[in-house]
Amino acid sequence: MAIRGVLRIGEVAVRVLDLEAATRHYGQYIGLHETLREKDRVYYKAWDEHDHHSVVIREADKAGLDYVAYKVHDEPTLRELEEKIGAYGFTVTRLAAGAYPRSGRRIQFELPSGHTMQLYAEKERIGNGLPTRNPGVLPDEGVIRGMRVTRLDHVLLAGPKITETAKFFIDVLNFDLGEELIDNDSGMQLSVFLCCSNKPHDIAFALNEAPGKFHHMSFYVDSVADVYHAGDIMGKHNISVDVGPTRHGITRGATIYFYDPSGNRNEVFSGGYIHYPDHPHLTWDTTQLGHAAFAIDNQPRPSFFNVVT
Amino acid sequence: MAIRGVLRIGEVAVRVLDLEAATRHYGQYIGLHETLREKDRVYYKAWDEHDHHSVVIREADKAGLDYVAYKVHDEPTLRELEEKIGAYGFTVTRLAAGAYPRSGRRIQFELPSGHTMQLYAEKERIGNGLPTRNPGVLPDEGVIRGMRVTRLDHVLLAGPKITETAKFFIDVLNFDLGEELIDNDSGMQLSVFLCCSNKPHDIAFALNEAPGKFHHMSFYVDSVADVYHAGDIMGKHNISVDVGPTRHGITRGATIYFYDPSGNRNEVFSGGYIHYPDHPHLTWDTTQLGHAAFAIDNQPRPSFFNVVT
Amino acid sequence: MAIRGVLRIGEVAVRVLDLEAATRHYGQYIGLHETLREKDRVYYKAWDEHDHHSVVIREADKAGLDYVAYKVHDEPTLRELEEKIGAYGFTVTRLAAGAYPRSGRRIQFELPSGHTMQLYAEKERIGNGLPTRNPGVLPDEGVIRGMRVTRLDHVLLAGPKITETAKFFIDVLNFDLGEELIDNDSGMQLSVFLCCSNKPHDIAFALNEAPGKFHHMSFYVDSVADVYHAGDIMGKHNISVDVGPTRHGITRGATIYFYDPSGNRNEVFSGGYIHYPDHPHLTWDTTQLGHAAFAIDNQPRPSFFNVVT
Amino acid sequence: MAIRGVLRIGEVAVRVLDLEAATRHYGQYIGLHETLREKDRVYYKAWDEHDHHSVVIREADKAGLDYVAYKVHDEPTLRELEEKIGAYGFTVTRLAAGAYPRSGRRIQFELPSGHTMQLYAEKERIGNGLPTRNPGVLPDEGVIRGMRVTRLDHVLLAGPKITETAKFFIDVLNFDLGEELIDNDSGMQLSVFLCCSNKPHDIAFALNEAPGKFHHMSFYVDSVADVYHAGDIMGKHNISVDVGPTRHGITRGATIYFYDPSGNRNEVFSGGYIHYPDHPHLTWDTTQLGHAAFAIDNQPRPSFFNVVT
Repeated sequence: MAIRGVLRIGEVAVRVLDLEAATRHYGQYIGLHETLREKDRVYYKAWDEHDHHSVVIREADKAGLDYVAYKVHDEPTLRELEEKIGAYGFTVTRLAAGAYPRSGRRIQFELPSGHTMQLYAEKERIGNGLPTRNPGVLPDEGVIRGMRVTRLDHVLLAGPKITETAKFFIDVLNFDLGEELIDNDSGMQLSVFLCCSNKPHDIAFALNEAPGKFHHMSFYVDSVADVYHAGDIMGKHNISVDVGPTRHGITRGATIYFYDPSGNRNEVFSGGYIHYPDHPHLTWDTTQLGHAAFAIDNQPRPSFFNVVT
Repeated sequence: MAIRGVLRIGEVAVRVLDLEAATRHYGQYIGLHETLREKDRVYYKAWDEHDHHSVVIREADKAGLDYVAYKVHDEPTLRELEEKIGAYGFTVTRLAAGAYPRSGRRIQFELPSGHTMQLYAEKERIGNGLPTRNPGVLPDEGVIRGMRVTRLDHVLLAGPKITETAKFFIDVLNFDLGEELIDNDSGMQLSVFLCCSNKPHDIAFALNEAPGKFHHMSFYVDSVADVYHAGDIMGKHNISVDVGPTRHGITRGATIYFYDPSGNRNEVFSGGYIHYPDHPHLTWDTTQLGHAAFAIDNQPRPSFFNVVT
Repeated sequence: MAIRGVLRIGEVAVRVLDLEAATRHYGQYIGLHETLREKDRVYYKAWDEHDHHSVVIREADKAGLDYVAYKVHDEPTLRELEEKIGAYGFTVTRLAAGAYPRSGRRIQFELPSGHTMQLYAEKERIGNGLPTRNPGVLPDEGVIRGMRVTRLDHVLLAGPKITETAKFFIDVLNFDLGEELIDNDSGMQLSVFLCCSNKPHDIAFALNEAPGKFHHMSFYVDSVADVYHAGDIMGKHNISVDVGPTRHGITRGATIYFYDPSGNRNEVFSGGYIHYPDHPHLTWDTTQLGHAAFAIDNQPRPSFFNVVT
Repeated sequence: MAIRGVLRIGEVAVRVLDLEAATRHYGQYIGLHETLREKDRVYYKAWDEHDHHSVVIREADKAGLDYVAYKVHDEPTLRELEEKIGAYGFTVTRLAAGAYPRSGRRIQFELPSGHTMQLYAEKERIGNGLPTRNPGVLPDEGVIRGMRVTRLDHVLLAGPKITETAKFFIDVLNFDLGEELIDNDSGMQLSVFLCCSNKPHDIAFALNEAPGKFHHMSFYVDSVADVYHAGDIMGKHNISVDVGPTRHGITRGATIYFYDPSGNRNEVFSGGYIHYPDHPHLTWDTTQLGHAAFAIDNQPRPSFFNVVT
């Protein structure tokens, strides 16, 4: 059966301290395409996405996550999930079509980890710049620009109760647990990686005392050559790099972590294995914490758990 | 929702004229791992697959396809599909667990295109050589070998009634139509590319007068550098190359088509976009036949439609 | 000792039938930077070259080569070579500084193969767009564009007496013979690959009845990923592709041959081994003609020897 | 003129504390091929080198450099350089043919930086495993192994008087200064990168109080994909990584620094621009120390100047 149910991350909305610096970062440096600007918000899409936008930045006094929204297959799916989530005991808020620009109705709820999550089935489709009849493979010169990211890939959120949060994703939203990092003594989950697709993760959670914290949003690039190219952009513009280039043990993806000017962490990511539900889920423990996080130098970075917005 | 229903191609069984030449080809040159040998059959898996085997070669007087088998999520899915397929009017044959080695029960039916297709939910899982606790990212030296293929990716089958066949995949097996190539005058479908995952195709059909024909099986490699490496292996061992390296317009994947010693076509494939059901399906027509097939030189090859086994 | 004597190909001047179509090809599609335009000529450089130009196109009634010019280390080298070439029996013509734009004096002579060759020591240096103090590694967005070529790499010229021509390069200009393709029966050289650097060739000659013919000019790209990207540009703009992507046996380089709108052959090229004079020169013979030319499918193309301008 | 004079680094000899651990590192992990073993020494070559060996490890009580040896074009070059070096005021010692295995006579002298350097013109040529007639492009399975390094590329040595040392290389050995890192206040050179080829460096020196120190030996790999693959090997075998993957500002090369079990630093390196003597030499200063060293995160590492053997 084709991909149904929850399809993918559709939108991440973060707060930034300075909209102008942020637009230079997300627009010019990362190379996202601005599709809408409101007084205090800018909306972006990566070039190979079809929907109107996937990243929203809002000027505010404090960086961090406003909400993350996942797109579901269709309105019946949305109704079905609305009912399941309510029955699970979460308070579900309805947001009317149009409450968010170019978007159908949404439902919103709070995760045990303290994050605001939304689901929606409809958003204006504006295409990826290639026609649907005889599309070809390459957009016009200049469409692929900046860090050459192709799409928003996933987010990692930090907060308490991540095992409970993972259970909700697995039992109610029908995600799979792809990988987990556990404390070797207690067995407690320190991070969980959850899949609603063939990707090695579609959302992940890291244990953190404070609720509702944002660890990073991740953009996909096509190759390790493009990971390096993204890194060259970072170096040229003095973008603050957290870690990388390196490879994650978890997911096997090539990565660079870096920060937007407000301190929100971003990632460029490439590769990783293909996920199937009949593959074993993988468990890493704290005896291999470094290898789990960064599989080349096997050095855990304090920032991995500590720096969140 | 995670991947459910039909998961992926699980097994392709082809006939070869000379088992020894074929084992050199599939084992040594492509680099598949032999997991079982019977009198007239050899079973292989690619290194990063978890199930016992995905490719079966059988010595026979004539090359071509014995059957293709797709793995479904679980036994309830298999039962549900068995019922739906029967209700759709196809004759469904039950094959008991053990009828195929290391495999649970299967159901078998014939597609309108003349191909034998099977579905199954269980096969012995032997893993990819990495542990499930602290797996790391790299198997031991020598495990990734030959053409460095990571997994069986898809098949393209040739036969009549491909529109009817596609309809079955869409209506009964819940695949999506990802792309199609149509005759520009008549609108008739000449090839169809169908997805049950985030991949740009999981099975494809090309129009052909004779039923039950085999166009190619495709193996995934991690990068265009690995496509080139696979090509170097072909050149070194005088493997017959059909087309490539080049890029497909359809799927955007990098490719080389080549033949096994019996004339069955193989492919190494890398890249391609991510498929989602809310993306528009793409239509190519015969005015752009060359670009649809081979998007660098835009030259259609007669072999693309003519050479099948 | 550092590179001295003849340094590299400094300039190739070709005739095109339609200047406007040619500027679209060399400027927009290949992505060269126009640095000077005269009535019937346009001058280009690749982004990572430091001198004012390396490619000159001139509108004329017939495609083909005007001349090829190699840059030597300095004026004493030029004087020394002028004397040696004259003593070797070639007629050497002096071209005053300024006879060619932004260029010091040149000497010109005709090769036994019928090609006009020039040597010069001085050309205006305009840099690669990066400063020489704290240069960084990446030019501004848009500087690397089109096929992302970094520099003019070499030419292959076609004509008679290539063994005699090679002897001149080796004995007088102090090039090394890197590789050769010979007729297996007669031992006659069919093509010769000559090095004045660590590259696997700096100039090459193919045997051809007609003198003074142009086989191709080659541009370097950084990776096989960029070879593919160049191929995508070709496919998008319907640029006529001769062969590739593939790998050469000779030089081991990854390649695509394609044509400018006037029929002059171009190449994008990446990789290849490092040449040293104490490495054995490599000999290919006509029993392995296909593998020598195109080492993946081992198919010689008639165009390789036949199509020249 | 072809490459003449000093050709390349031909041999680096380092001391290791434990020969068995070192052979696992250089042989199995890096993938060098052992070509000779003496009581306390092992000799290695990278697969694509033609001479008998390029790396020598010797068991001793203290890690560090025994000597570095560069190969020159021929015996007349060696005689000429012997005379020039003596005339320059250095004490030159003659080492008879056979004093070093498989090697012609050598001359030896001490650099102002405190390092022992040798020059030689002859070493037994054993080839790269490919024939010289119809060689093909790919050696047999298993020849390219471990980190897939193709050749020894350069060394970086640490010591005092590096400006004086560079002057010797430039004035006597005819190297070019490719790049330099200077103190922004005093203008004093902190590191110098010297070329005798088209590579962005063939030897480099970093300022260090103690003489004769070893910073690293570098091995070339073909692509950033191979840099990552080498990194995966490091992570799998818990090889101590110093920095990377990242890109150098100086040379533009992609890099990982890591340590052998005795603490001698190694590097895998790929890419970098092509050097020509008429290109401007590049100067980096301490205001851009981070970008000069590691051009993605722009973070200087204390280890870069401090950790030497």
